[in-house]
Amino acid sequence: MLPIAVDAMGGDLAPSEIVAGARRAHDDGIPVVLVGRPEEIGDPGPLEVIAASEVIAMDADPGGSVRRMKDSSLVRAAEAVRDGRASAMISAGNTGATMASALLRMGRIKGVSRPAIATPIPDPSGTPCVLLDAGANADCQPEWLRQFAQMGAVYSRERYGVARPRIGLLSIGEESTKGNSLVKETHKLLAALDWDAAGAEFIGNIEGRDLMSSVADVAVTDGFTGNVALKALEGGMRSLVNALLGVFDSSDEARTAAEALMPALAPLYAQLDPENTGGAMLLGVDGVCMISHGSSSAVAMHNAVRTASEMVRAGLVAHLAEAVGRT
Amino acid sequence: MLPIAVDAMGGDLAPSEIVAGARRAHDDGIPVVLVGRPEEIGDPGPLEVIAASEVIAMDADPGGSVRRMKDSSLVRAAEAVRDGRASAMISAGNTGATMASALLRMGRIKGVSRPAIATPIPDPSGTPCVLLDAGANADCQPEWLRQFAQMGAVYSRERYGVARPRIGLLSIGEESTKGNSLVKETHKLLAALDWDAAGAEFIGNIEGRDLMSSVADVAVTDGFTGNVALKALEGGMRSLVNALLGVFDSSDEARTAAEALMPALAPLYAQLDPENTGGAMLLGVDGVCMISHGSSSAVAMHNAVRTASEMVRAGLVAHLAEAVGRT
Repeated sequence: MLPIAVDAMGGDLAPSEIVAGARRAHDDGIPVVLVGRPEEIGDPGPLEVIAASEVIAMDADPGGSVRRMKDSSLVRAAEAVRDGRASAMISAGNTGATMASALLRMGRIKGVSRPAIATPIPDPSGTPCVLLDAGANADCQPEWLRQFAQMGAVYSRERYGVARPRIGLLSIGEESTKGNSLVKETHKLLAALDWDAAGAEFIGNIEGRDLMSSVADVAVTDGFTGNVALKALEGGMRSLVNALLGVFDSSDEARTAAEALMPALAPLYAQLDPENTGGAMLLGVDGVCMISHGSSSAVAMHNAVRTASEMVRAGLVAHLAEAVGRT
Repeated sequence: MLPIAVDAMGGDLAPSEIVAGARRAHDDGIPVVLVGRPEEIGDPGPLEVIAASEVIAMDADPGGSVRRMKDSSLVRAAEAVRDGRASAMISAGNTGATMASALLRMGRIKGVSRPAIATPIPDPSGTPCVLLDAGANADCQPEWLRQFAQMGAVYSRERYGVARPRIGLLSIGEESTKGNSLVKETHKLLAALDWDAAGAEFIGNIEGRDLMSSVADVAVTDGFTGNVALKALEGGMRSLVNALLGVFDSSDEARTAAEALMPALAPLYAQLDPENTGGAMLLGVDGVCMISHGSSSAVAMHNAVRTASEMVRAGLVAHLAEAVGRT
């Protein structure tokens, strides 16, 4: 397998934690190449480095930066995939610039109208639900959502081993007549597809409360709604966890009790921790592109590299191309 | 004060829990009138009853039911407000039919384009954030969202005593250029308003993660996004609480520890419990209209009646009319 190109300069904890995570993946036997400023990366150990002199800041304008900073680590990472020097790219840096780099350098899979960000939503009782689009396209057309559904089915199968993914259309009522005009039009398109041929199932509309349950394996929505819902869940979980930690620390008795619960709480916490999910995937570009959380640590980056390598081995891009070709 | 009209037939636990809650409110000194089938209500105690022979089912088509079932408890409750027999209406029944009854019988406040559902989102660290629209209007125009912002500011002040409510526009990035086309247009309208005159402040875009924090007092959005975000939060909280309860019951040691934590956990649970928030308010109709959760118990209905009576005493409708008249 060609190496995974890791943007060593992207993320709040770059380059140290990013490089550390990449090295752990290498120790697992996954080929990795770092992309960035050699003098800041420091000792890359056994890893190859593709030199890039520029760094796109976390808050920089995505489109303009990518066009202007041709020797940035993000652009060079995307070019490495395009040029056959790498099999995938990963960045914990500027999300918009990661998307723009991938889109402009790798291009889209033939037939794909718009790439979408697919983000796993953890479900304490089972397999994560793949939410897409989680933020790439704020205004969408029904045809794009149809392709998101097709790509989501492939991703749920390849990444989580769901044999026959259940596709839900995110709406505000279960009946096909409920929703905004985009959802009503999309519902017709999804109902008309041959899901048997795709090895998946369209279960109709789902609601926000179904995202973190086991109702659907894929939740299809526009990038505005998806991003709001995802961040609402992240913020809600954080608020609740903080409130719980406050309770756990509210008295000596509470502290003792909380300590006794910790061994049982740890697996739940790990399941909900974004560090362990490996990050989001940009589906629809002509290459594997992972978008990791800006706060990614070495653990998160290690997981992201592992996930990317699995998707490369599974032939994700070819399966996506095949899926969007179906009608 | 004129009595609060309570739809005795609406809700999963109607009429028994609804009537019980209404009687508790009466015992607090709040005048209440029940609306529904006298033979099903049973002994109303000291409460007056407005007889209504029909009941709109929870899953009935809202518009058609309201037009057809003129002697339904929902329609009669709305008429009681219109005719000056009641000061407010409350139902835990069919949400769409509650909205349609209020809209068709009470009419809109002069100048209001569309009524919106305002739902409080609990914040473990402080005052709830008022989210609107939480589901009345799936497709919205920027001008409607401007009015939602104006009405939300009034509601935050009257219901939660926030002296100078901070109004946030729900989007997918803090910059004014981020969002879908509806949000970008709305941002311009909100930025151009004289918020000082309204005794409030426009803080710009907020994100999904800010809903359950203390960033804003009012979150403005379209009814599709608002409903998805609200239900995502409700579902996420339920999933996490269920997972925690599983951990608490996972061993003898865990059970003992959880028991010791319960006194400290109870207030947090109570704060997050929808039973205690009194439900949602339909803002923009010419009368106070509360929409309670379908699963409302006597406790929830008691709280809803109390909230409705407070809003009547505060002159909510007059304040809303004044607010939407400002430009």
